[in-house]
Amino acid sequence: MMELTVYLAGEIHSNWREGIRKQAKELKLPLHFTGPMEDHDRSDHIGEEILGPQPNKVAKDEAASSINNLRTQLLIGKADVVIAFFGKEYKQWNSAMDAATAITLQKPVIIIREESLHHALKELSNKAQVVAETPEQALKALAYVFE
Amino acid sequence: MMELTVYLAGEIHSNWREGIRKQAKELKLPLHFTGPMEDHDRSDHIGEEILGPQPNKVAKDEAASSINNLRTQLLIGKADVVIAFFGKEYKQWNSAMDAATAITLQKPVIIIREESLHHALKELSNKAQVVAETPEQALKALAYVFE
Amino acid sequence: MMELTVYLAGEIHSNWREGIRKQAKELKLPLHFTGPMEDHDRSDHIGEEILGPQPNKVAKDEAASSINNLRTQLLIGKADVVIAFFGKEYKQWNSAMDAATAITLQKPVIIIREESLHHALKELSNKAQVVAETPEQALKALAYVFE
Amino acid sequence: MMELTVYLAGEIHSNWREGIRKQAKELKLPLHFTGPMEDHDRSDHIGEEILGPQPNKVAKDEAASSINNLRTQLLIGKADVVIAFFGKEYKQWNSAMDAATAITLQKPVIIIREESLHHALKELSNKAQVVAETPEQALKALAYVFE
Amino acid sequence: MMELTVYLAGEIHSNWREGIRKQAKELKLPLHFTGPMEDHDRSDHIGEEILGPQPNKVAKDEAASSINNLRTQLLIGKADVVIAFFGKEYKQWNSAMDAATAITLQKPVIIIREESLHHALKELSNKAQVVAETPEQALKALAYVFE
Amino acid sequence: MMELTVYLAGEIHSNWREGIRKQAKELKLPLHFTGPMEDHDRSDHIGEEILGPQPNKVAKDEAASSINNLRTQLLIGKADVVIAFFGKEYKQWNSAMDAATAITLQKPVIIIREESLHHALKELSNKAQVVAETPEQALKALAYVFE
Amino acid sequence: MMELTVYLAGEIHSNWREGIRKQAKELKLPLHFTGPMEDHDRSDHIGEEILGPQPNKVAKDEAASSINNLRTQLLIGKADVVIAFFGKEYKQWNSAMDAATAITLQKPVIIIREESLHHALKELSNKAQVVAETPEQALKALAYVFE
Amino acid sequence: MMELTVYLAGEIHSNWREGIRKQAKELKLPLHFTGPMEDHDRSDHIGEEILGPQPNKVAKDEAASSINNLRTQLLIGKADVVIAFFGKEYKQWNSAMDAATAITLQKPVIIIREESLHHALKELSNKAQVVAETPEQALKALAYVFE
Repeated sequence: MMELTVYLAGEIHSNWREGIRKQAKELKLPLHFTGPMEDHDRSDHIGEEILGPQPNKVAKDEAASSINNLRTQLLIGKADVVIAFFGKEYKQWNSAMDAATAITLQKPVIIIREESLHHALKELSNKAQVVAETPEQALKALAYVFE
Repeated sequence: MMELTVYLAGEIHSNWREGIRKQAKELKLPLHFTGPMEDHDRSDHIGEEILGPQPNKVAKDEAASSINNLRTQLLIGKADVVIAFFGKEYKQWNSAMDAATAITLQKPVIIIREESLHHALKELSNKAQVVAETPEQALKALAYVFE
Repeated sequence: MMELTVYLAGEIHSNWREGIRKQAKELKLPLHFTGPMEDHDRSDHIGEEILGPQPNKVAKDEAASSINNLRTQLLIGKADVVIAFFGKEYKQWNSAMDAATAITLQKPVIIIREESLHHALKELSNKAQVVAETPEQALKALAYVFE
Repeated sequence: MMELTVYLAGEIHSNWREGIRKQAKELKLPLHFTGPMEDHDRSDHIGEEILGPQPNKVAKDEAASSINNLRTQLLIGKADVVIAFFGKEYKQWNSAMDAATAITLQKPVIIIREESLHHALKELSNKAQVVAETPEQALKALAYVFE
Repeated sequence: MMELTVYLAGEIHSNWREGIRKQAKELKLPLHFTGPMEDHDRSDHIGEEILGPQPNKVAKDEAASSINNLRTQLLIGKADVVIAFFGKEYKQWNSAMDAATAITLQKPVIIIREESLHHALKELSNKAQVVAETPEQALKALAYVFE
Repeated sequence: MMELTVYLAGEIHSNWREGIRKQAKELKLPLHFTGPMEDHDRSDHIGEEILGPQPNKVAKDEAASSINNLRTQLLIGKADVVIAFFGKEYKQWNSAMDAATAITLQKPVIIIREESLHHALKELSNKAQVVAETPEQALKALAYVFE
Repeated sequence: MMELTVYLAGEIHSNWREGIRKQAKELKLPLHFTGPMEDHDRSDHIGEEILGPQPNKVAKDEAASSINNLRTQLLIGKADVVIAFFGKEYKQWNSAMDAATAITLQKPVIIIREESLHHALKELSNKAQVVAETPEQALKALAYVFE
Repeated sequence: MMELTVYLAGEIHSNWREGIRKQAKELKLPLHFTGPMEDHDRSDHIGEEILGPQPNKVAKDEAASSINNLRTQLLIGKADVVIAFFGKEYKQWNSAMDAATAITLQKPVIIIREESLHHALKELSNKAQVVAETPEQALKALAYVFE
């Protein structure tokens, strides 16, 4: 049976991914999930952890993002579809970057955001394939592919 | 002589584009600039202005963004290079979207942001070709191409 | 042994897909079939079912088509070949869209139509790889690939 | 100044193209228009006219469509944007084909149709960049790109 | 272990493919071979066999080639590498077509021809990755990939 | 006004190109023609002429074809459409290569051959956009694009 | 579980690959390694070994490189990521070629070099995704993808 | 008349480019030349010159190469053909990178090197379209395109 690989882009401060993974299991959907490093501290320090001390904060960030982007490029490259969650806090510029990258690579993107965020997201939403308000809706859209 | 078309992505609340255009003129660089609608109100209302009244706010946003994205897709498609400016205010998700879209299309991107914003922008900066702090630096980088 | 994935585009009012699936089984061909939602009502209502009530009919259609196109994009993306059936009734614009999309993605398309429809389909037929009159002919063409 | 080439896909039985061309002239927009052969008879007979008599009606259609598609492939290939008009009559499968081809080639498409046709066009509309009701709206959307 | 799929393009009048298949088996190389219909008569008549009688010889050829090209497009699309054999007889224009198609798709091509044919093949040979004189040499080149 | 660049692939022993160029001039069509080196001897010796003596005939051919293919790659890359003429004599494998290369690059190809050659050319003809019998027909097909 | 195929480009005079393979085994990472022929002599003589004696040294090199590049093209084509090691000795132009090829194909590249070599490698490093000093660091970056 | 843009990649320590430019002028060839910054010091310091002081030598190199690669990406992107010169001194890894990048982008590359360097360049030479010993030969190959 056909399987789909789903990259779960977006914030790593709430446990929205857990809900999606659990529900997919309950529905026995043939979905394989990947995503960014969810341990925020580890994500920030991974550059120095692997490549050693860097001379300043910008260089430390550059080292970390070179490793994080290696991960993202490999995993989005293997994904069939990307779900991108936008919350109320933080800049979330890399979530927007991941979504736009996938769209430009012609991979379908499902955006999850509460309606109050829609105005700021309107151009990205217009390019996404589906715009949902909850993780449950995003999963239902994927379940529909297998019916 | 070779000309370059430069799309100026990013916020439309300050006049950072003016500085770049003026400096390019003074240096007589063969640069042709394009960018988003800079009248913020017009950008928000363009959907209803052209397509007529929409049933609610989300639909109004969708109508506006369909026109705004038509403009962006055409102009980024014709651009040789994108300069993306990130300021301290607002979500600026469509700036991140424009930058990531250009990068994925293999067009070089120059990001302008003050250093305090670097951490939130680190993954996008790592994918950009040049990361600058001021519009002047971005223009100097382009001037170097013609030397 | 090599398997081929076949997307069965086209009308969902007759049971033409059943004949193809059955015949492939009898011939033990290594074909895996996918296609659109065949329950017409469900296809029309899937937007509101997943995303909730919409403000008018156009918005309801837009919600439904965003989910239907998610399905189609994923399944045509994974297909090796597309069979597109055109009947006498209905506009069938999404059948023409699916066929043209696959052709532009350089995936071979087999069109099935009765000869009386050929004139209206002549430009699409010219771009398709094979033009057949019956589902049996389309399946025979695929069987030939495995001989 | 930047110019845009616009392919006007769609029916050749009404004079909707004339209105667009005239309005563009009045507004002095730097648009260059192309489109299919608008003389319906000539379009149907062009195969035999150039390549000589064909043995039956299907072969005559095939000869004509090989020439018509040569024209369309060259002109859509050179177009920056496609406007596709759908009317109430006829199958218009090649209009749907032209629109889907342009979308898949990542060229923006503006669809014009009256609202009563929306349901049958909903999947194609969802993939188009702008959906308008009149040629005037489509032209205004292009005019906005130059503001 | 990695497997390679090899499309064996070229003439179907001698049994050069048999030698390659047998030698690959003896060396236990993880190669999977595909190729055109090797029964020449069947290849010529497959159009009418599947699609019914055609009005003249050109139309019969067109029907046959539409089915043969369906097969070739699918199989070259799935191939990792193409071996193209050129003999002394016949025009072999579809062998040259298959080789050039694969090269343009960035798939490596190994050409087999005896040296006396080199002059006529010089431009195609220059674009191929390897030029050999015997099927054994072509197979050795593939065996080297697995060492 | 739009111009089209036409690469004239195929044999260099008859003057079929002259007829096309002359007719295009008479009809004042905005066509720009390119093609291979038409001096056969020069084409064969160009490798040694530029790169110096080669150790044997195969190496001489390889040197010549590296220069000829440089020319062809540049000119087909800039062409909008390719006309490929096949005559009765010679292997003409590089004509088939040029046609297949253009088709795979999604450039339309017009084949000219007399009907007696159709059988050997049937697979290539099926992939071409137009199949004509005379240079005049090929030019008429291009003239139709400008009507 | 997802597996990654890693092409190990670079010098074949030290045993840096062995360390990577061993460490991956110890960490039970789902990595599959490929790379160039590591027997330097065999790599230099493979052209004559397979294709027979060549008329001079340049022709011998050309024969060998045609086989070596067949291997590289197939293996980099199947790789998800490339690790490229640069040492102090030799020109290593094909290592730079392999890295640049992978980057242009949008495959992520990890460069390993000691810091003293950075200046000469600065442009290539800027295009790579990760720049490391030791094979251990490169492997840790890949391990991070699976966390 | 058709013009070609030629990127002159390779070492900036000798004046090989001058000879090519002068000869092209004498022959009145419609060639437009671009290339890297030829002032070696400026190329090394351009990062700090534009972006300000960097914390260490690697960071200084990274800043410089981000500007140099911006230039190279824009100019190779606009080039029709790349001439890459390899001399006896220095690592010249970015020359190999430029050549491999152009080849992977399907742009033809002409390599110039003296024969003693051929062995180290054999894999890159095999992927190039023409391999010459002198700038004069490279220019003659381009002149042939216009005959």
